[in-house]
Amino acid sequence: MAKDKKPRRPRAETPKGFRDYFGIDVTERKAMLDRIAEVYHRYGYDPLETSAVETVEALGKFLPDVDRPNEGVFAWQEEDSDWVALRYDLTAPLARVAAQFRNDLPNPYRRYAMGPVWRNEKPGPGRFRQFYQCDADTVGAATVAADAEVCAMLSDALETVGIPRGDYVVRVNNRKVLNGVMEVAGVLDPADPSKFEAERGIVLRAIDKLDRLGEAGVRALLGEGRKDDSGDFTDGAKLSEAQAEVVMGFMAARRETGAETCARLRELVAGSAMGAEGVDELETIATLLDAQGYGPDRIILDPSVVRGLGYYTGPVFEAELTFEILDEKGRPRQFGSVAGGGRYDDLVKRFTGQDVPATGVSIGVDRLLAALRAKGRAGAGMDGPVIVTVMDRDRMAEYQTMVGELRSAGIRAEVYLGNPKNFGNQLKYADKRQSPVAIIQGSDEAARGVVQIKDLVLGAKIAESASLEEWKSQPAQFEAARADLVAEVRRLLAQGEG
Amino acid sequence: MAKDKKPRRPRAETPKGFRDYFGIDVTERKAMLDRIAEVYHRYGYDPLETSAVETVEALGKFLPDVDRPNEGVFAWQEEDSDWVALRYDLTAPLARVAAQFRNDLPNPYRRYAMGPVWRNEKPGPGRFRQFYQCDADTVGAATVAADAEVCAMLSDALETVGIPRGDYVVRVNNRKVLNGVMEVAGVLDPADPSKFEAERGIVLRAIDKLDRLGEAGVRALLGEGRKDDSGDFTDGAKLSEAQAEVVMGFMAARRETGAETCARLRELVAGSAMGAEGVDELETIATLLDAQGYGPDRIILDPSVVRGLGYYTGPVFEAELTFEILDEKGRPRQFGSVAGGGRYDDLVKRFTGQDVPATGVSIGVDRLLAALRAKGRAGAGMDGPVIVTVMDRDRMAEYQTMVGELRSAGIRAEVYLGNPKNFGNQLKYADKRQSPVAIIQGSDEAARGVVQIKDLVLGAKIAESASLEEWKSQPAQFEAARADLVAEVRRLLAQGEG
Repeated sequence: MAKDKKPRRPRAETPKGFRDYFGIDVTERKAMLDRIAEVYHRYGYDPLETSAVETVEALGKFLPDVDRPNEGVFAWQEEDSDWVALRYDLTAPLARVAAQFRNDLPNPYRRYAMGPVWRNEKPGPGRFRQFYQCDADTVGAATVAADAEVCAMLSDALETVGIPRGDYVVRVNNRKVLNGVMEVAGVLDPADPSKFEAERGIVLRAIDKLDRLGEAGVRALLGEGRKDDSGDFTDGAKLSEAQAEVVMGFMAARRETGAETCARLRELVAGSAMGAEGVDELETIATLLDAQGYGPDRIILDPSVVRGLGYYTGPVFEAELTFEILDEKGRPRQFGSVAGGGRYDDLVKRFTGQDVPATGVSIGVDRLLAALRAKGRAGAGMDGPVIVTVMDRDRMAEYQTMVGELRSAGIRAEVYLGNPKNFGNQLKYADKRQSPVAIIQGSDEAARGVVQIKDLVLGAKIAESASLEEWKSQPAQFEAARADLVAEVRRLLAQGEG
Repeated sequence: MAKDKKPRRPRAETPKGFRDYFGIDVTERKAMLDRIAEVYHRYGYDPLETSAVETVEALGKFLPDVDRPNEGVFAWQEEDSDWVALRYDLTAPLARVAAQFRNDLPNPYRRYAMGPVWRNEKPGPGRFRQFYQCDADTVGAATVAADAEVCAMLSDALETVGIPRGDYVVRVNNRKVLNGVMEVAGVLDPADPSKFEAERGIVLRAIDKLDRLGEAGVRALLGEGRKDDSGDFTDGAKLSEAQAEVVMGFMAARRETGAETCARLRELVAGSAMGAEGVDELETIATLLDAQGYGPDRIILDPSVVRGLGYYTGPVFEAELTFEILDEKGRPRQFGSVAGGGRYDDLVKRFTGQDVPATGVSIGVDRLLAALRAKGRAGAGMDGPVIVTVMDRDRMAEYQTMVGELRSAGIRAEVYLGNPKNFGNQLKYADKRQSPVAIIQGSDEAARGVVQIKDLVLGAKIAESASLEEWKSQPAQFEAARADLVAEVRRLLAQGEG
């Protein structure tokens, strides 16, 4: 006899690589983004919220990690219609908007955007397929004063959310200088920019990995190639010793002051017109920032910063947190990069054919929030509600009146709305909600016009350390006149803050 | 000779039915949602942000509009993996979360959620495929005190964002009463609930359309059916005259007071146990709300409210704005519904097999924001930045210093970063940015230690009405000492607010 097949219940799970954010994770992130938005607003940037879904043709293929196949997006085809995809960053949609609304937007157009982006990549620990980005860009400004402005604003934003000066540094470089170095090293021919493209890609990624691979690792990648710890071999750029020397010299070009760094860079790019232009731009940026008081305690020129993205065409920058945290094995390590950006003059051109200069920065929201938590600066923590317990189901209206009074006084409060039969469950609930105070009123208290007020913060302290006698005397619970409910709760909460 | 085919440029467009939100559209919505979140927080609700992508099996098939085929979602299949989809509301993800984290969440679990949802429906004017929802729900509370709380909180939220008492009403009904009426009318057999399901669906949707179709239209749908203006025929529930009379009586059961309405409903459901239970619940809700001061000036019992969604199992509610606005043809009409919700006790059970009572409300974010705009209460409008113009490219550092000083004083300010050659373009830009003030400093002014300050608000007024002579005298522009820049700008901005 065939067994009846019961319909399977749906699994209560997110798709692989997705997650939910609860309570304080939402409020702390929001508080941080709100503060950043205030800074951006003061700099004249306007918010823009594009749709999550874009046509695949509008998104293009600009995913940051060029080592991967250029999939990486969540895409599907609509019936009788185009292929569409979830945006993978906030820059591609900005380029689309700048082209679509070019006749209506102010020019230059300063905008900020905050929201989730999606990457169809293999999820891993701490690596999710939906995460937040927070970007600010200026479209239509050719002057490097726009790049300098973005760097200053990034510095202000970091300090505003709670990273003090000295705990971060914004490093600035210029792709044109790097291209000048490539020209001098013989892997860039200004007359035929497509020549040596593969080699330059390898050089770029090698420099970007200096932190991780060290000087020897980078040298290997500039030459024949490099075998990593797992035995995998990465092909090198096959530069000669002399060529590699030029590139290594570039990475080590940082000097004590911006002026000295520029002087050294000028030596390195001697003979390259593009290189010289790049050094000029770096000098202008440094001058503008110095004049506004953004000295080397906040923003420095650093030739080792290249940023992985292929689309940068001029200045590039990166914000690094310089304090140490302990890694999962308890070893101190640098926190590292929390934001980066640069000039990308070709993204809008894809749509319009016209040159549209653009520059901007993207803050890694999750990383910056993690940094604030590591420094204990993410926020005041959870404020649990006052819980009015239910001793007597028939007197629900009175309990509701109590929370109404507390809320009117600005105090977060709620009635226990589970099954009230087991009073222990109500206190367990209050514990789970991190409630500071519970209110109790049975029919006896009601008849006498009083309430019992339980100080759960003090109660928890006593439970940790008190003797049985102390515990029995219940100093954490007292009786108050019903009319004094709000005043007494307010007094307790004020103590908790003190 | 074959013509070279030039690669087509990508189109700079959103997919059909999607849109972007610029500047004030983003900030006004955010301000409104922030105020609502404060109310929810004070009631003890915690934020939850679920992933935008869910498995199709977790989402289930609960799309509101049952007239459509049950597609309506954006779904695609991941390689070697499940079908996934963008969430179409915030309730289905909550049900998944409540099941997935049932051992970790407080019980009852009060949560609010705000964010975009996606519907794969035919777009139309004002009808988009991505839009915001703003929900608050309690999972795990069987008592109708939870429903009463949601109604009170909805009322508070509407008043907090700027809908004054008297301009809205929250209508409350109960599906159980409706089911009692169905039972009395003979289209519900408590012993076999699956019988007459199609008929009940038609009755439900007919009642829901009372506003639009009027009494005669609803009567037609309860009977043989109805031909609309376009000639399309909608099949009716085929009730007899006597059966239809019971349903019509239900819709007209509203009386002056909640107590009278309940008395009338009790007559109508005489003989139905479920109907009597529903009336009891309505009475409890009314009593609780009255005790907290939420009288019929804010919340009323109204049997004509049924809410389209099939999944409601008990109390249902709807917030309606009662003031008139002018429609596109200039005719006054009621603004209508901006929020709705109710009790849905079966959504979590899909996953766990266990009964999990739940109730909640969803605010239509776009509609509520449109209402606030119609009443002129959406916000203070755009605050354009002060624009420091560029007269002299070489003095960019000094212009940057000026905006730095203004920002430090809390004033939104920016340097013009477009091509400065044409000064007229700079003023056009200031106009587009709705700037209140422009600052001008050429080398002459710099040498004398002064700046020109242009009051663009006054300037616009003069341009509208002034004579040529008045205009030439330029009262809207004056000279000030460079040291007084911040003070003078602050003075002008304060005037603008006055």
